[in-house]
Amino acid sequence: MSALDPVAVIAAKRDGGRLPDETIRWLFDAYLAGQVAEEQMAALLMAIVWRGMEPAELAAWTGAMIDSGVRLDLSGIGRPTVDKHSTGGVGDKISLILVPLVAALGAAVPQLSGRGLGHTGGTLDKLESIPGWRADLPLSEVRASLAELGGVICAASADLAPADRRLYALRDVTATVESIPLIASSIMSKKIAEGTEALLLDVKVGSGAFMTELGAARRLAETMIALGEAHGVRTAALLTAMDTPLGEAAGNAVEVAESLEVLSGRGPADVRALVVAEAEVMLRLAGIDADPAAALDDGRALAKWRELIGRQGGDPDAPLPAGRELAVVTAPASGYVTRLDARAVGVAAWRLGAGRARPGDSVSATAGVLCVAKPGAEVEKGAPVLRLVGDDPSRVDAALDALRGAIGIGPELPPPAPLVIESLG
Amino acid sequence: MSALDPVAVIAAKRDGGRLPDETIRWLFDAYLAGQVAEEQMAALLMAIVWRGMEPAELAAWTGAMIDSGVRLDLSGIGRPTVDKHSTGGVGDKISLILVPLVAALGAAVPQLSGRGLGHTGGTLDKLESIPGWRADLPLSEVRASLAELGGVICAASADLAPADRRLYALRDVTATVESIPLIASSIMSKKIAEGTEALLLDVKVGSGAFMTELGAARRLAETMIALGEAHGVRTAALLTAMDTPLGEAAGNAVEVAESLEVLSGRGPADVRALVVAEAEVMLRLAGIDADPAAALDDGRALAKWRELIGRQGGDPDAPLPAGRELAVVTAPASGYVTRLDARAVGVAAWRLGAGRARPGDSVSATAGVLCVAKPGAEVEKGAPVLRLVGDDPSRVDAALDALRGAIGIGPELPPPAPLVIESLG
Repeated sequence: MSALDPVAVIAAKRDGGRLPDETIRWLFDAYLAGQVAEEQMAALLMAIVWRGMEPAELAAWTGAMIDSGVRLDLSGIGRPTVDKHSTGGVGDKISLILVPLVAALGAAVPQLSGRGLGHTGGTLDKLESIPGWRADLPLSEVRASLAELGGVICAASADLAPADRRLYALRDVTATVESIPLIASSIMSKKIAEGTEALLLDVKVGSGAFMTELGAARRLAETMIALGEAHGVRTAALLTAMDTPLGEAAGNAVEVAESLEVLSGRGPADVRALVVAEAEVMLRLAGIDADPAAALDDGRALAKWRELIGRQGGDPDAPLPAGRELAVVTAPASGYVTRLDARAVGVAAWRLGAGRARPGDSVSATAGVLCVAKPGAEVEKGAPVLRLVGDDPSRVDAALDALRGAIGIGPELPPPAPLVIESLG
Repeated sequence: MSALDPVAVIAAKRDGGRLPDETIRWLFDAYLAGQVAEEQMAALLMAIVWRGMEPAELAAWTGAMIDSGVRLDLSGIGRPTVDKHSTGGVGDKISLILVPLVAALGAAVPQLSGRGLGHTGGTLDKLESIPGWRADLPLSEVRASLAELGGVICAASADLAPADRRLYALRDVTATVESIPLIASSIMSKKIAEGTEALLLDVKVGSGAFMTELGAARRLAETMIALGEAHGVRTAALLTAMDTPLGEAAGNAVEVAESLEVLSGRGPADVRALVVAEAEVMLRLAGIDADPAAALDDGRALAKWRELIGRQGGDPDAPLPAGRELAVVTAPASGYVTRLDARAVGVAAWRLGAGRARPGDSVSATAGVLCVAKPGAEVEKGAPVLRLVGDDPSRVDAALDALRGAIGIGPELPPPAPLVIESLG
């Protein structure tokens, strides 16, 4: 196949072939230069959904995406760098707690994030409910914050893997999102470009996650670990449960409030347990011997939070915006809560205004869902299970619609479901 | 799936689903109106290459392509209409002979053609080597010629299945040509739109054909027959051999000259045999009881040719343009010719100038390859096997390159290969 003929490249993948490294390089250069048309890239993407990519081929593909922009060099900041990425879940405020916690223990965490989309919230959207806090930082500030404080949570610069932005927009309109190699290369190109030495992946599995099936989640995790290693980033993964929301809050300000509880040594047990489990892996990857639970209990993590928020213009003492209670969903029977569907709660919070349907939409700081009773709780018929909060009552009906059938009640205490299903890498 | 969401339509096909009829209608309307983007149609086409289409789904797809333009109504011309379509071969001048032959016997043959592309020549290109002959006719002339003479060979109007033109251009740049349902719908939408009551398909199989494999050719033929029947066109197919060129000439004027030989009751036996076989099927489809071989021998077919050519401005008595002999390929050993590769000969003729690489390129009237010795012929080492003719000596080297290894010589007479492999419908 000639590296200069896009039709031959598409045909090779269509027929199940492996694209040579130099062909992939040429393809990305030509695509970004406008010499390969969107329709040609779309056909190639669908052929990749169909045929997949071999590990070395995918590493080259990801490398070409990284090389479409800059790869940050964080050497010389004086601390080991380690980041985490979650594939997205409902009530997933782990990063808000984990970044200050791991930073407090001596690592530097370069958490450069995208915005949330759909029913899983975005870390930046949550933090933006804090008065004054800003997500956009120049790279000089990113580096300074990492060196001085050991962490930063900010918007990923447009210079990081810009090819991913174009490819993702194309995948979104051509039904080519659902492909493990394409998902893996999208995530890993941005994380590798941000310059971290090590990376923990939290791959969510369950109704509220992008991956609803354990086998697919495991393949995605393994694929991303291989990509990290191929590009010199020590990478590990946890497969974690996402059938029910994490913690009790799903939204923006409500999740910040819950994060502050956990940072203060309190808060829901599941959130604290997952934060500690993830911190342990990150510290191991960074070569740091420390006890994360202690740093939650003794105020070190909270102190680091105040520093990090303050450095980006946020007032850690300002009251968070609060919505009104707009509706309550009650238990349809007496018994134990056996099921509280993560996706339904996520969609309800989204419809209340916590999430966006399209990139660029604004989100509501106050909208969200509070889970008063979670699986394992004993409830009386008519007792509150969910409280819907926010500022816009016109959105309540659509949110309640999403919650139809989301709550299961049974006569017996459900068996405890493990939060961390599997540890890889 | 909502009929109004192209991403859901693509995803449904990606996941192996059947597109409902009303979704297909909506899709074509939206695509032609610019509401479905080229990249979305490209992704859908690749998903169709992958997943295929069910017969009823493909009939609806083809119906939407037909309805993107006009379907001619040829009722009232006073003769039964029957057309033929060849999937394209090297030296395939059958239509030039078949149309006047079947017209002479009482049917009306509306042969509305596209231009040739690649190594298989186009009927219009061949006829345009006749001084004065023009391919473009208004529809009123098409109808008049059919009613008065019983035939017409002309360029297909842009009003026939215009969606196919757009889809084909997109398939060409996205490596989505090679799909039996997409090939079948492209051919049949145009043939059904031209208004014929019956249709014979000549599906070529072998090295010089689009389909090199019998199984795939049979599936294509069966798919097209089903589409014809679904849209009320009596359809039959012959699977015919295309491992070696048809007749002795491949090119434009040289094929017209050979056609005149066959129309005069002479000419190569293979061409005559295939013309007669195809005419028999067409006459059967048209409900006409007649002997085509007799009409070749007694001058009726030739007289009809003169009428048809003259009606479109051609001078049947004018000498055809003739090229020079540019090179001769000789037998590499003494023995029997066991193989003369159709594709190699087609590519050589194409490179000499007989065919075009891109739509809109002009072609040479004189360029071509004459097969002096075909499989079964006994030759001495050094005796001529192929003569390359044309006007442009600068093209000879590339043509000779294509012919490397194209000729096989062996000690024994090869077994005769059947020309008509299978008859369907």
